[in-house]
Amino acid sequence: MSVPPPNDETKALLGQLLGLVSQLQTSQAELTKQVSEYQKRTNRALDSLQQRVAEVVLPIVTAESPTRPYRTFAYDKDREHNEDSDDVESSTESFKKRSASPLHSPNPKIVASSNNSAQQPIYTSRVVLTTYPGQAGITPIPLIWGHSNPHTRGPIVASRIPSSMKLRNAVGAHGGAYSIYRALAIAIRELDAAHTPNLHNTEPVCKIGPFPSWNDPECIVSLDPWGHVIMDVYKDELAKGIDIRPTIAITKAHMKLLEVEEAVRKGRLVVDGKIVVNDLGDLMVTKGAVEPVWFLPGIAKRFQVDETTLRRALFEDTGGMYPELITRPDLKVFLPPIGGLSIYIMGPPEYLSDPSKVLTLRVHDECNGSDVFGSDICTCRPYLIYGIEEAVKTAQNGGVGLIVYFRKEGRALGEVTKYLVYNARKRAEGGDTAKNYFLRTENIAGVKDMRFQATMPDVLHWLGIKKIDRMISMSNMKYDAIVGSGIPILERVPIPADMLPPDSQVEIDAKIASGYFSHSAAPADLSTTKGRTWDDINH
Amino acid sequence: MSVPPPNDETKALLGQLLGLVSQLQTSQAELTKQVSEYQKRTNRALDSLQQRVAEVVLPIVTAESPTRPYRTFAYDKDREHNEDSDDVESSTESFKKRSASPLHSPNPKIVASSNNSAQQPIYTSRVVLTTYPGQAGITPIPLIWGHSNPHTRGPIVASRIPSSMKLRNAVGAHGGAYSIYRALAIAIRELDAAHTPNLHNTEPVCKIGPFPSWNDPECIVSLDPWGHVIMDVYKDELAKGIDIRPTIAITKAHMKLLEVEEAVRKGRLVVDGKIVVNDLGDLMVTKGAVEPVWFLPGIAKRFQVDETTLRRALFEDTGGMYPELITRPDLKVFLPPIGGLSIYIMGPPEYLSDPSKVLTLRVHDECNGSDVFGSDICTCRPYLIYGIEEAVKTAQNGGVGLIVYFRKEGRALGEVTKYLVYNARKRAEGGDTAKNYFLRTENIAGVKDMRFQATMPDVLHWLGIKKIDRMISMSNMKYDAIVGSGIPILERVPIPADMLPPDSQVEIDAKIASGYFSHSAAPADLSTTKGRTWDDINH
Repeated sequence: MSVPPPNDETKALLGQLLGLVSQLQTSQAELTKQVSEYQKRTNRALDSLQQRVAEVVLPIVTAESPTRPYRTFAYDKDREHNEDSDDVESSTESFKKRSASPLHSPNPKIVASSNNSAQQPIYTSRVVLTTYPGQAGITPIPLIWGHSNPHTRGPIVASRIPSSMKLRNAVGAHGGAYSIYRALAIAIRELDAAHTPNLHNTEPVCKIGPFPSWNDPECIVSLDPWGHVIMDVYKDELAKGIDIRPTIAITKAHMKLLEVEEAVRKGRLVVDGKIVVNDLGDLMVTKGAVEPVWFLPGIAKRFQVDETTLRRALFEDTGGMYPELITRPDLKVFLPPIGGLSIYIMGPPEYLSDPSKVLTLRVHDECNGSDVFGSDICTCRPYLIYGIEEAVKTAQNGGVGLIVYFRKEGRALGEVTKYLVYNARKRAEGGDTAKNYFLRTENIAGVKDMRFQATMPDVLHWLGIKKIDRMISMSNMKYDAIVGSGIPILERVPIPADMLPPDSQVEIDAKIASGYFSHSAAPADLSTTKGRTWDDINH
Repeated sequence: MSVPPPNDETKALLGQLLGLVSQLQTSQAELTKQVSEYQKRTNRALDSLQQRVAEVVLPIVTAESPTRPYRTFAYDKDREHNEDSDDVESSTESFKKRSASPLHSPNPKIVASSNNSAQQPIYTSRVVLTTYPGQAGITPIPLIWGHSNPHTRGPIVASRIPSSMKLRNAVGAHGGAYSIYRALAIAIRELDAAHTPNLHNTEPVCKIGPFPSWNDPECIVSLDPWGHVIMDVYKDELAKGIDIRPTIAITKAHMKLLEVEEAVRKGRLVVDGKIVVNDLGDLMVTKGAVEPVWFLPGIAKRFQVDETTLRRALFEDTGGMYPELITRPDLKVFLPPIGGLSIYIMGPPEYLSDPSKVLTLRVHDECNGSDVFGSDICTCRPYLIYGIEEAVKTAQNGGVGLIVYFRKEGRALGEVTKYLVYNARKRAEGGDTAKNYFLRTENIAGVKDMRFQATMPDVLHWLGIKKIDRMISMSNMKYDAIVGSGIPILERVPIPADMLPPDSQVEIDAKIASGYFSHSAAPADLSTTKGRTWDDINH
């Protein structure tokens, strides 16, 4: 290349350079502006996101500064762990630290309830509002509902103690609604949160199962068929410190019922020394308590809804209970905080699964006002007592009797609703008639019944029952549910007319007219069946 | 400035300029690199934060694609509302749309349960896992707990129907655990989520309050003193469509108890035609059902813990129930999903608050196995029946009787735990002794009792009770709680020895030794009080 003449070309070059510098300046100014705007945008976005995270993942400060209810996620000075570590890991770590503290020793000294600020805080400053699938450190114990091998099926783990926290495979808490009382006990330091039950000597008093019905994931969906024998089938897991709890307990009982004493006195029942043990009518029974354990895909199928809708309803329409119902679709088991059921077996429990033995059954839904206090507006306690008498007679004749008692007060509407309905019935224009019996409940509750017998037969399948000889119930809903689940019912037994309490005719006629089983028809005009009025009972 | 000679100085200038441009290029390259790195960093941070938000605020797709359980917040195609609008507003909008659909007309036609994909989805695609204070659109109805004017106090609103969603001032749901059944009813489209009760004719059958105790925010903290008269005191709010529900219902009942019939037959009770209405021993009573409504600051104070710890425990130790307990410190009221209580009044209800009238009281905690089924291992039903008899006698003598029945099965440990304890007691080496009575429960449950009587006296204050003449209970915990709350107890009445069931001596001796009231002392050696063994009851 030739050397250019200096002067003119220098000028040209200078011109070019100035142009370039000018461009660079413009471009740099633009870049600076862009960076500034980008910073603003990202700062805004980060602020907004951090705020949202802070709102949702609110850590609270407990003992240190009770007046300051919570600090945000971003500024939590108490976070001692890696910022990128997952919530569950951190929680587990904190649980471990807590367990190692003197307050949570393996043999905890019960600490008197007090608001002693010198005590170790019960909780860490971080709150995990919900968990999500695949979160680092979470490895739920696999659960294959309905598998015949309990180890392959897997234990139900709902516990949040350190050794079980990451292994949890169920939403909810043991003990149903009583977990609220447990929470109170922990808050006032009467109970160590890490306490696990000593299950020595708690085993069932008789063998129940396994039955083929346990191996069908759609046959039993509302209780854990292995719930009574976890101390046996999961002893290795228990030895490792995994907190597995019985959801079923089976014991024996000696029952004293004045109605049964009267039945013996009047000769309706005889003393046999084994079931009716003496002339006071004392009964020997095997009894059990069963907590609900819901396999959500199975519950959804039973109720003919999709699992997502079921989970959403259980979350939304309980006022936002258990967000893990939504965020943990990988957890298929839910321990709902509802009452469970009790069973009373008259005669050898093993006869329940023996089709050659006659079986008498009463499925009873709780009615505290009648069952305990003898209200005469319904047939509940009389029908229950009749069921017990018939169950005893069947057992005495070489068969077996079974009473199943569900905690579904007031048709699962609760007692407040029930009493509101009573008032509306008694004050109705035209009186308390069978015709308007269900309408009064619908007006108040929106439905006439919320017991939903769809999962009721599960307990029968769990007991290995294959057929029912005598069903002491007039309920078409119970009958349909049992027969629909594959257990034939050979005979249905209405309540004897002489056991009907004075004011219960309204209920009975309304139920018969709506399809309940009876040997007699309901009156053609249901408005003629009237109950007691306020005036009758006010004098 | 002088004009420089062109050649040499031009060269120098060119060199300077080249150097500057070169620096600019380097600096710009560096800036570009920095911007790029900053972008990468912020994009990573934003992605991570968005992912976290998506994980926590998981919208789900309901009816449209049940096989795809949820989509993330960021990619939710179904969000029809402003991205910046708050969650509650969107939910309310969707509720309104839902309410306007044919399935949710004011007089809904009950739709048979089915998984009909042509139906309108019950829920929108967005889930609000929790709410937070100050969220746009949320304006909770002010609540001044303990204020004497019910309007200033404010109604309790827990409902999520459109007209009440933004006004909610309570965490939880009405009906306690029965909200689970309500959720099932909504999921299967048996119940319209927007149904509100028709309260016509449901008013209490007698006047209860207001009493001065209602105006003390620390006197009553576990129930809503206005809970039975909301249809009256909040009729304006109800007329506006705000979903306020009774948490208390008061009705009348006619009770038939065989024990009372026997008492009449044996002459222990006489027929007066008003309370004992006939020689069958039929009783006329006023009865009520009360759902728990917890004012959390008051509950915390009662249990001597700070409110933050209480809220945290109620959340953590129930397995993560109700995150709003944590995120909504502005909401002070909680409707816990536990059972409530029932009251039975013998004689004029207005006498309860009249200190010139003699008052007999039994506070009874549920025991299904004895109360309904007559188990003889405890004193529950006999003591309850004795309480009823004494309450009736007091009423017949011009005073008033009261039975309060709390749903706290098995010392609020639940029936499964109770039966596990029975097994451990009966199988213990050395037998079932009074000495080890409480130990067996502690081994399994971690505590010997979880009933916590701290809030029990609330119902007495609600009824305006100022003193108790006769307390049919041996419990020191109940006695201490009532007297400590400012209601003197003039006489304590143990269960008569002849009413003790055969196998209940272990319980009674253990309780007396632990401090329960009795006219007789517990045996010096509690290991000598032994209960029945398995063998005894196995033959």
